[in-house]
Amino acid sequence: MNNFYVLHDSQNLYFRNPFGAVKTGSNINLALEAEGCDEAVIEIIRFDGSRESIPMERHPKDGTWNVFLFKGTIKICDTPGIINYYFTLRRGWQTIFYGDNWECLGGSGQIYYENPKWYQITVFKDFKVPKWYKEGIIYQIFVDRFYNGNENGEISNAKSNCFIYGKWYDNPMYIKDETGKVIRWDFFGGNLKGVLKKLSYIKSLGITTIYMNPIFEAASSHKYDVGNYKKIDPMFGDEELFKNLCKEAEKLGMKVILDGVFSHTGADSLYFNRYGNYDSLGAFQSKDSPYYSWYRFKNYPYDYEAWWGFENQPNVDELNPSYIEYIINGQDSVVEKWMKLGASGWRLDVADELPDEFICELKKKIKEVNKESVLIGEVWEDASNKVSYGKRRKYFLGEELDSVTGYPFRDIILSFLIGYLDSHGVRRRFMSLYENYPKENFYSSMNVLGTHDTERILTALSGNGKGEENSRVLLKLAVAFQMTFPGVPLIYYGDEAGVMGGRDPENRKTYPWGKEDKDILSWYRKLTHIRDHHQVFKRGDFRFFETHEDVLCFKRKDGDSKAIVIINRNTEASIKVEFGEVYGKYRNLFKDEGVYYSPNGVMRVHLKPMEVKALINI
Amino acid sequence: MNNFYVLHDSQNLYFRNPFGAVKTGSNINLALEAEGCDEAVIEIIRFDGSRESIPMERHPKDGTWNVFLFKGTIKICDTPGIINYYFTLRRGWQTIFYGDNWECLGGSGQIYYENPKWYQITVFKDFKVPKWYKEGIIYQIFVDRFYNGNENGEISNAKSNCFIYGKWYDNPMYIKDETGKVIRWDFFGGNLKGVLKKLSYIKSLGITTIYMNPIFEAASSHKYDVGNYKKIDPMFGDEELFKNLCKEAEKLGMKVILDGVFSHTGADSLYFNRYGNYDSLGAFQSKDSPYYSWYRFKNYPYDYEAWWGFENQPNVDELNPSYIEYIINGQDSVVEKWMKLGASGWRLDVADELPDEFICELKKKIKEVNKESVLIGEVWEDASNKVSYGKRRKYFLGEELDSVTGYPFRDIILSFLIGYLDSHGVRRRFMSLYENYPKENFYSSMNVLGTHDTERILTALSGNGKGEENSRVLLKLAVAFQMTFPGVPLIYYGDEAGVMGGRDPENRKTYPWGKEDKDILSWYRKLTHIRDHHQVFKRGDFRFFETHEDVLCFKRKDGDSKAIVIINRNTEASIKVEFGEVYGKYRNLFKDEGVYYSPNGVMRVHLKPMEVKALINI
Repeated sequence: MNNFYVLHDSQNLYFRNPFGAVKTGSNINLALEAEGCDEAVIEIIRFDGSRESIPMERHPKDGTWNVFLFKGTIKICDTPGIINYYFTLRRGWQTIFYGDNWECLGGSGQIYYENPKWYQITVFKDFKVPKWYKEGIIYQIFVDRFYNGNENGEISNAKSNCFIYGKWYDNPMYIKDETGKVIRWDFFGGNLKGVLKKLSYIKSLGITTIYMNPIFEAASSHKYDVGNYKKIDPMFGDEELFKNLCKEAEKLGMKVILDGVFSHTGADSLYFNRYGNYDSLGAFQSKDSPYYSWYRFKNYPYDYEAWWGFENQPNVDELNPSYIEYIINGQDSVVEKWMKLGASGWRLDVADELPDEFICELKKKIKEVNKESVLIGEVWEDASNKVSYGKRRKYFLGEELDSVTGYPFRDIILSFLIGYLDSHGVRRRFMSLYENYPKENFYSSMNVLGTHDTERILTALSGNGKGEENSRVLLKLAVAFQMTFPGVPLIYYGDEAGVMGGRDPENRKTYPWGKEDKDILSWYRKLTHIRDHHQVFKRGDFRFFETHEDVLCFKRKDGDSKAIVIINRNTEASIKVEFGEVYGKYRNLFKDEGVYYSPNGVMRVHLKPMEVKALINI
Repeated sequence: MNNFYVLHDSQNLYFRNPFGAVKTGSNINLALEAEGCDEAVIEIIRFDGSRESIPMERHPKDGTWNVFLFKGTIKICDTPGIINYYFTLRRGWQTIFYGDNWECLGGSGQIYYENPKWYQITVFKDFKVPKWYKEGIIYQIFVDRFYNGNENGEISNAKSNCFIYGKWYDNPMYIKDETGKVIRWDFFGGNLKGVLKKLSYIKSLGITTIYMNPIFEAASSHKYDVGNYKKIDPMFGDEELFKNLCKEAEKLGMKVILDGVFSHTGADSLYFNRYGNYDSLGAFQSKDSPYYSWYRFKNYPYDYEAWWGFENQPNVDELNPSYIEYIINGQDSVVEKWMKLGASGWRLDVADELPDEFICELKKKIKEVNKESVLIGEVWEDASNKVSYGKRRKYFLGEELDSVTGYPFRDIILSFLIGYLDSHGVRRRFMSLYENYPKENFYSSMNVLGTHDTERILTALSGNGKGEENSRVLLKLAVAFQMTFPGVPLIYYGDEAGVMGGRDPENRKTYPWGKEDKDILSWYRKLTHIRDHHQVFKRGDFRFFETHEDVLCFKRKDGDSKAIVIINRNTEASIKVEFGEVYGKYRNLFKDEGVYYSPNGVMRVHLKPMEVKALINI
């Protein structure tokens, strides 16, 4: 086959305008340059599965002999959804295709002779994410492991047949039988009183939003096996304490977000009551149970659908009217109850398991209760085009989620810092998300470095095998990136204190009160302070510069405020980089080293091994 | 072969005189009746392996045609030990043997044509067991599970990487890895303060001796893996508390006995220090360790001899001079230290693992420190003829043990009550022990119904499958037997409150404070009261009557005091029994039912199903 020139770059306004995700009712102009082609057609498929072929106009391209510029417009209807497209080209006797690159990252695509990859346009209903969330910083607390606020570290209301760790600094472990099933739950004794007592510490980290893993009554320490949606777990505290916590947090300018587990309940719950521990008539006990219709039994009562097959977490039918009533719409529904007591939003556990209708309904309700509330979904991949159970999800079409758990953020920066991905790859991956996500969603993405479901970031950064001291410096680079990049930084309790640990349960160690890594802690404080004092990092536009494979370089711009962040991941080599279209004078926020300026728009910067500079215009 | 009459009954004074075990220097007269025999010889083997043949004199037996009475005397030397014997008979052309029955229970033997069983005579150096012990009642406490005496049930000094049960009434369990190895120790939080606070409760049970499972510092909850012989485990308390406990117990007329674990230490100990948790230089860490010579390494340091192969319990060489010095003879030796602080004796864990020389030495020392002290050995079988590691043990020759853990007692009564053994079998088994044990030892045997190493007695009694209510009544029969039979009754904490549980760890449940089975508890109190108020049960002679296979019947006699105990194990049938050689008038201690008397020496008693009567002469 011949080699010839064809180009469409979805991230270049010359080829696609406007950039990225668009509001309903917009038109999108697409262009394509192709050598020696007679005709070009835009093939589109809409969210509802309908297809359309849009012929493009052919124009000669100035200054070339045989290259043509094709132009066409996609008229956007008013229904939000994803539109996908590629191009069909006729070139003499030959029909070829041009679609997205094989990685589906957007930007420049490639020629296909069959099965072209689709480009994506996200079409959303306009919406705003509350500013307090979007411009804030989140602190995630796994309550049992954060702080025990009781006098003398007493354990209150321990459950029957559970274990309490002998010491706060013990290594967490699961107590399992030989089949791997957890047979006793393990507790350190952290509680809401502990969170309350540590509010000023949390505030000192620059936090504006506290997100707590589930706190409702449940058998386990993680509490994803909810026993009673309307009750704080007695080991954690009670309603009064929760209310007080929200009030005191609010006084310090912090809001509280709860973890809502709505895809399943615990088997040991008010609703299912498999073990008869509740006074209720549970679905497991009788078909006359008011909760019977919530669950899906294959063979009553022992064979039921359960989350990942774990029999202690039976799935619910989220669209069952009685369930929706209980959780969302009823008098004193679960979401209303806790919001009235002070919660400002919800993180939806396993959003992929929840039907869009359920999420929509829930979003509508929480906005009714408090229009400044937020809804965050647990989604592990690009949330704009997520398919679960064979259906495209509508998370980001304007009527569901404000934000998602930004695991891609973690993956990308971690891969870069430990050497699995160069800076070019970093740019492409972030640009893909930036292109696919509505801007509000992109700027509201939870930028996590660690969570209760991943290895501790400091441990993950040891993955390059270059020693502990190195990984501590790499952590600083990661935090610097996190605090200067678009999106809402999330600090997983203890990461700021240098806590290490592999996967669950190692990543759920207790906060090391009195044994914090002071150096890391002060770095975190410095970075959140920087973010807090420079709006540009919260809301500025951003753009990557391609410099050196080991160097991540991007600028932020918000009106006259400008900032440039440059990160050298190389553990041994100093690197000089230069990049253009930068004007003005800058100073480095991390070091007093004189003024940076770019006389002709080209900036030259020298970085030591593992150095980060944050240049801010002066 | 022909059937003909031969008889020797070792338990009948006509055939062997004196009865049973004898003091050094005694002579034993033996007799044998044999039909048509020409010659009889006593074949003996002494403790040192030397053999002797003692010809017997032949006498015709009055009133028979062809039966002869043979008589001979064994002259006992002054060395304590066991002497075994059987008889060789010449009958015309034939040589036959007469020895102990095939079960080796003593009493009537049998003819053998080869390999006759040996009868046993125990020859011991005269000694006395202190009266306080011999005539007392023991309460055994597994400290972690008895009572937490801290304010509000706080746990003090929990160890690193251990687990505390969430509730006092949780089911105990071991936390093991997939190979079955314990990976975290589990604690309920019982402690010496708890024992101290419950002294008056213990006293109310009629207790005179408190025996505690090990209390010295150790990683585990059972503390058989000693970490420091000279320190109370910090979770349990401290030296001051121990001293105080002994003092307060003494005030109430109770003495304290400790559990001495001298066959091994913990790997996690001051001495071995495998995990570096101690400040010392342990044997595992260096061959220069002062404790290096205590252990037996096959391949230093990882391959060492350990108790039952458990690497957390390395065996010690008990005869190593440095070990003997440390434990027994040195300045402030382990045994001296704790006795000076108040202990009145020791229970030697796994006595079979300890060389006789070690036990002798230890006995000598404790008698020096306190001549009223006692030494008890953990021995699971007839301790008079125990062989361990190919050697006959000298436990009961007068220079070692005062008492042993009476597991045969439990086996016999349990087997009877659940129907595996009839009352004839019970008699034979007890008579065998009575014959083989020096009387002081027999009367000092710890008569256990349960310990930390057996199923709870109430659970074991459910083994007949006749329901829980039945087993509770059978328990009462067992306790009645225990409290009226020779030997020192031992109550394993909680048995008196109706605690159930299978083998370890189920048999180590916590004492159910506030949830005691009041009925069982008051029966225990009644029976210990009876024992306490009737010397005859503590020190009286005893003799079984054979009546009905379901009825156990024996009398006790101490001077003019006489008692008869009759137990019907049958769960459904009333049984009438009669037995003779009983004179006088009696009343039943359990029921006001008029006077029993035996006009002509024959007593007739009617028992309901599962009834026990204790008749006492009036």
